[in-house]
Amino acid sequence: MATTRLETFCDGVIAIAATLLILDVRATGAHLGSQLTHIWPSYAAYAISFLTIGIIWVNHHTVMSVIGSVDRRFLFINVLFLMTVAFAPFPTRLVAEYVRAGGSDARDAALAYGFTFTAMSITYVSMWLYAVGGGRLLRAEADPKLVAGISRSFRPGTLMYLGATLVAFASPAASVALFAAIALFYVVESSVFAPARGRP
Amino acid sequence: MATTRLETFCDGVIAIAATLLILDVRATGAHLGSQLTHIWPSYAAYAISFLTIGIIWVNHHTVMSVIGSVDRRFLFINVLFLMTVAFAPFPTRLVAEYVRAGGSDARDAALAYGFTFTAMSITYVSMWLYAVGGGRLLRAEADPKLVAGISRSFRPGTLMYLGATLVAFASPAASVALFAAIALFYVVESSVFAPARGRP
Amino acid sequence: MATTRLETFCDGVIAIAATLLILDVRATGAHLGSQLTHIWPSYAAYAISFLTIGIIWVNHHTVMSVIGSVDRRFLFINVLFLMTVAFAPFPTRLVAEYVRAGGSDARDAALAYGFTFTAMSITYVSMWLYAVGGGRLLRAEADPKLVAGISRSFRPGTLMYLGATLVAFASPAASVALFAAIALFYVVESSVFAPARGRP
Amino acid sequence: MATTRLETFCDGVIAIAATLLILDVRATGAHLGSQLTHIWPSYAAYAISFLTIGIIWVNHHTVMSVIGSVDRRFLFINVLFLMTVAFAPFPTRLVAEYVRAGGSDARDAALAYGFTFTAMSITYVSMWLYAVGGGRLLRAEADPKLVAGISRSFRPGTLMYLGATLVAFASPAASVALFAAIALFYVVESSVFAPARGRP
Repeated sequence: MATTRLETFCDGVIAIAATLLILDVRATGAHLGSQLTHIWPSYAAYAISFLTIGIIWVNHHTVMSVIGSVDRRFLFINVLFLMTVAFAPFPTRLVAEYVRAGGSDARDAALAYGFTFTAMSITYVSMWLYAVGGGRLLRAEADPKLVAGISRSFRPGTLMYLGATLVAFASPAASVALFAAIALFYVVESSVFAPARGRP
Repeated sequence: MATTRLETFCDGVIAIAATLLILDVRATGAHLGSQLTHIWPSYAAYAISFLTIGIIWVNHHTVMSVIGSVDRRFLFINVLFLMTVAFAPFPTRLVAEYVRAGGSDARDAALAYGFTFTAMSITYVSMWLYAVGGGRLLRAEADPKLVAGISRSFRPGTLMYLGATLVAFASPAASVALFAAIALFYVVESSVFAPARGRP
Repeated sequence: MATTRLETFCDGVIAIAATLLILDVRATGAHLGSQLTHIWPSYAAYAISFLTIGIIWVNHHTVMSVIGSVDRRFLFINVLFLMTVAFAPFPTRLVAEYVRAGGSDARDAALAYGFTFTAMSITYVSMWLYAVGGGRLLRAEADPKLVAGISRSFRPGTLMYLGATLVAFASPAASVALFAAIALFYVVESSVFAPARGRP
Repeated sequence: MATTRLETFCDGVIAIAATLLILDVRATGAHLGSQLTHIWPSYAAYAISFLTIGIIWVNHHTVMSVIGSVDRRFLFINVLFLMTVAFAPFPTRLVAEYVRAGGSDARDAALAYGFTFTAMSITYVSMWLYAVGGGRLLRAEADPKLVAGISRSFRPGTLMYLGATLVAFASPAASVALFAAIALFYVVESSVFAPARGRP
């Protein structure tokens, strides 16, 4: 099977999940100005989730560039991965609404947020490990260095996400801020420093 | 007519229908933690519908791989099929909301759910039977064994879905659980056992 | 400019507009069974709009098959056309909600519905007339018979839609039923009779 | 990296953002006719946003036609750009709801609207400047005249948008009307006058 249709489908789900995030940014009633300021956690949650989903899309791009064919198991792992991506608008809304509430509500919102992105990372890495295991789905001409580089870049992801999630037990706001920091770090590291060191 | 645009359009509708499912997973008010536990039927309904739609997408993938051209009737059968796929978020929400209500409400929600997926299966099989009838739309080089294998794999689908639907008269929860079991069975069977036996 | 990206974008908007229709099919509260029966206008409006949008997609398919290049004016006419397609969920919801209300409310809902589809038809025919005028955007190898056949098939469209719309002044339900009849007639005519007479 | 997947993803987000705009055009309650008239700011906001997003899509089309490859930084600038496009439904809804409210609420809605489109323009121009800087991502065979023409056409954009935004301090309605005028001017200028003068 060719990879084109899988790419179209993944791009579709990722694009829709990212775009649906805006439906939960809402302001109504009088004194619009102060409301627009008051709902800043909605903007923050929107930006962090959109950026994280965008990073995942960029990585999916890199992964598919070295994959030459797909089989049914790979498709199903992708479906599971997309199920976690499409789930993202729900915890994003929870964080936007509850992160300032304090107490167990803020914690539970941040945990829901963190576990969703951790699950996204787990299914994503599984997809990669399956494709790369024994060179199963790799293009014949895939550069082994690039493949090793992708594997290496995925290694810390899940643990970092899990760590950031567990921080919610101490401070929900810090947990969400960590997700923002991871996303920003990733964008800067992979687009500024990595090319300078000749990495993909 | 080429098949590319049909694939793009189907992928679009299927991706959107699957991603819209999350809009109905909602939790508001205080005591977020207990609410997040309480709405477990929403997660279950989301997962079952997403997985079933994902399976249908994977199968559409297989079907289109042996189809070489499309005609207007085939396009319209596809539109009907997509109409049932795009309908899925509605009964999914009903099941999430009513399956625990008991009595006739739970039954009617499960029936709406089951009949939607049965209709999806009927339009899907019609699409295949039309394409394969007299080899109408098959690629010249399509492997007859693969074609026969697809036909065989579609045979039990509609009846199984109809059966699972009718179980709702006895137990709505059992009916929904059967849809989950069918989806899981299908994923395991087609991705683990089928390749082992040399099936597509 | 190539036509591929235009097709992807149009397919995207059309697929999303059709799939969003389901968000307005809603049932809440107790006595789910009687409610599911009570909201039949929602199902009817969903089915008519989805089928009509599906037909428009199939036709766009046929049109693009004879178009070899696009220019900026053609793109903008397409944007206008898509603006009317993406508008469809709004009057569809109005018809579902008001068609049984009787009086001026039912009439106004049916008028909003009809004028939306009439506007869709006008922008659609404009797109075609612009592309075909002086053979401007046609493929060099486009079959003149097929081009003439498309032109002929578009002729009655706008007037039929306008006529069906104006029927709402006499009977809103009859107006909506006419849109259903036009869609069904079109599907049957173009997929059953047209090929038999050697038409595309 | 090839540009195809980036185009698909951008087209997806742009198409979805434009189509989601309709979800905020709503009319309920009795006296539907007068309501349909009363909510004209919703139609205006829908049309202006849809047209502006459509113009951005057409321009993205032109930009990508001279770009031969993409790198990771370009992808991330695109993600930022898409983040502003996907944000559009939120201020569009605010304008529809508040532009007639007068006072600071109307002003703040118009400011939110204007700053969103200004941010869209800034990220869009950044994308172009990055691609074109030192010919970094241009196709080898890209026509230098076309490239210069695109650069020239982008120059006034951000300032015009910023200017129209700041008009909201004097008159929110005038600010929104300016966005409509800019969109209409652009469509007419680029599709009627530009080709006549041999511009792309």
